[in-house]
Amino acid sequence: MRIAVDAMGGDFAPGPIVQGAIEAVQRLDDVHIVLVGDRQQVEPLVAAAPREAQAQLDLVHCSQAIGMHEGPVVALRKKPDSSISRCWALMANGQVEAIVSAGNTGAMVAAGLMSRLFLKGVKRPGIGAVMPTSKGLSLIIDCGANMNAKPEHLFQYGVMGSVYAQNLFKIDSPTVGLMNVGTEEQKGSDLHKETRALFEASSLKPRFVGNIEGRDLHQGVCDVVVCDGYVGNVILKVSEGLAELMMRTTHEEVRRRLPDRAGEIDQAFRDLHQRFEYSEFGGAPLLGIAGICIICHGASDRRAIRNAIRCAASQAHARINEQIVAELRAAARATVGDPAS
Amino acid sequence: MRIAVDAMGGDFAPGPIVQGAIEAVQRLDDVHIVLVGDRQQVEPLVAAAPREAQAQLDLVHCSQAIGMHEGPVVALRKKPDSSISRCWALMANGQVEAIVSAGNTGAMVAAGLMSRLFLKGVKRPGIGAVMPTSKGLSLIIDCGANMNAKPEHLFQYGVMGSVYAQNLFKIDSPTVGLMNVGTEEQKGSDLHKETRALFEASSLKPRFVGNIEGRDLHQGVCDVVVCDGYVGNVILKVSEGLAELMMRTTHEEVRRRLPDRAGEIDQAFRDLHQRFEYSEFGGAPLLGIAGICIICHGASDRRAIRNAIRCAASQAHARINEQIVAELRAAARATVGDPAS
Repeated sequence: MRIAVDAMGGDFAPGPIVQGAIEAVQRLDDVHIVLVGDRQQVEPLVAAAPREAQAQLDLVHCSQAIGMHEGPVVALRKKPDSSISRCWALMANGQVEAIVSAGNTGAMVAAGLMSRLFLKGVKRPGIGAVMPTSKGLSLIIDCGANMNAKPEHLFQYGVMGSVYAQNLFKIDSPTVGLMNVGTEEQKGSDLHKETRALFEASSLKPRFVGNIEGRDLHQGVCDVVVCDGYVGNVILKVSEGLAELMMRTTHEEVRRRLPDRAGEIDQAFRDLHQRFEYSEFGGAPLLGIAGICIICHGASDRRAIRNAIRCAASQAHARINEQIVAELRAAARATVGDPAS
Repeated sequence: MRIAVDAMGGDFAPGPIVQGAIEAVQRLDDVHIVLVGDRQQVEPLVAAAPREAQAQLDLVHCSQAIGMHEGPVVALRKKPDSSISRCWALMANGQVEAIVSAGNTGAMVAAGLMSRLFLKGVKRPGIGAVMPTSKGLSLIIDCGANMNAKPEHLFQYGVMGSVYAQNLFKIDSPTVGLMNVGTEEQKGSDLHKETRALFEASSLKPRFVGNIEGRDLHQGVCDVVVCDGYVGNVILKVSEGLAELMMRTTHEEVRRRLPDRAGEIDQAFRDLHQRFEYSEFGGAPLLGIAGICIICHGASDRRAIRNAIRCAASQAHARINEQIVAELRAAARATVGDPAS
């Protein structure tokens, strides 16, 4: 399979991006990567790779790159030859099955929405992100693709997130919860009440756990947490910031009290860090796209890029998109009361 | 000053509530506490207190209590003699200056909104909560009083939160930020864009830092973080859940690796726990009320209640409400362009 990788996207691009791509093809025989970026910067990095890896790498030159802090819509309009636009064009033209970028998230999403490359039945794509919980991992969707969510969008996020979680977590019937301010039925805004009603009336009902609260998230009360893009984005970033703060604070404090055991303590925190480390989870999928789109953290290192590419490949192998289309169709049938569903 | 304490509110009421009240009056000479609750349950607890403390305690009997998980509006209607309703009535009648409850937050807020006991100029009261950051503490407002925030509500939260932070954190010019999905001006929904414009056009402009992101919160990029009640509530509870998870995980891991130093490690984590412990911060004020209302965590122990009472007393001494009214008036003048402001 062919995967386009945005070589210009990310805080440290193109170095760790190309390195991650090289490491990915060394591990994945059936993957061919199209690096999209500035030839002058990318070519020398590819030339330094082992010859066998080079055979699995292509380069598509583009003359522009969108900065991490540029306004997405304006940037996409001003830079038609950006690496992000080119990645999407490659997928739209069927030249690649998947795209991976650690670049400007807003621009990646906006380009995807503008491409209208949506799966059949999908109203609005949503970003899923994997979070560590006390029971393992949960998927939270949407984490920022959709700032004006409607009940049906949130319901579809539940369906899409559920299919993704099934494959990623290897579970048969992922449970789904709706992020709210309390667990009671009447809680939240109209958006929440109407979304809840959609789940209750759907084929997901048996595994819909209802409203969940913020503190339930990291306790892992359900496998898939549904919320609108604004809240999901805030949750993701607040959690990331707090995890960093707590890891640093506890590490310093324990080290200060047991200076003679600094080496072992440092090792313990390095291992703990990995457990709460987002790069381990292979990037965030933009679900609902007719194709595969993985958005990585801006600070992604080569390992994060490598994992994201592996994740894109396994998403393709699992035919997740076909499952999503089928599940959305089944869910729609269930809501109109077809007994066959 | 007289403070009403909801003796029936909280996961473990009335025991730790009454105990916290007793400890508070032992420390605060000028505070008189009215315990509102079931006489049969509360009287024996008061009788066990030292005589000097008893002299600063009164009991107002009520026959009903609202459960922690009851729907607020229905519960308030069905239970007119609940401890929460009685607390609000005492404040509305001028018999107490402040009320403190660890009971059903939704019912506390709903009773407050129904009382219409708002400060002059306030559109909607908001819950403020103190959060630990890498630089110290920040106030986040609103944490759940208002599920349908409008730009002017959010702007007023900035003004009220700012006055509160000034007094609580002892700083002259607290900085104010708007929680959003990115720092760029055009980010977020219409609510965010319009709120941002209100801040930019107001007397708070010099200390308005603009949009902040989730990960800025725990880095302490500003003293006051403004958001709508749904998001604030989710942030608060997500942070609480994640902090618990990380504290437990790191503690277990470090202990497992250095079993011979378990005692010192346990002590380190006990101390760390306090640094991230919400009961230390004295409960969450419902700001915008003509009176003082402190809402405590349902799991509050006697120390949390004691701190909340102390916090209510110091809020009264600092005349925070007068400052809020003055600041709101000044801010309104500024937005209409009065050069005197």
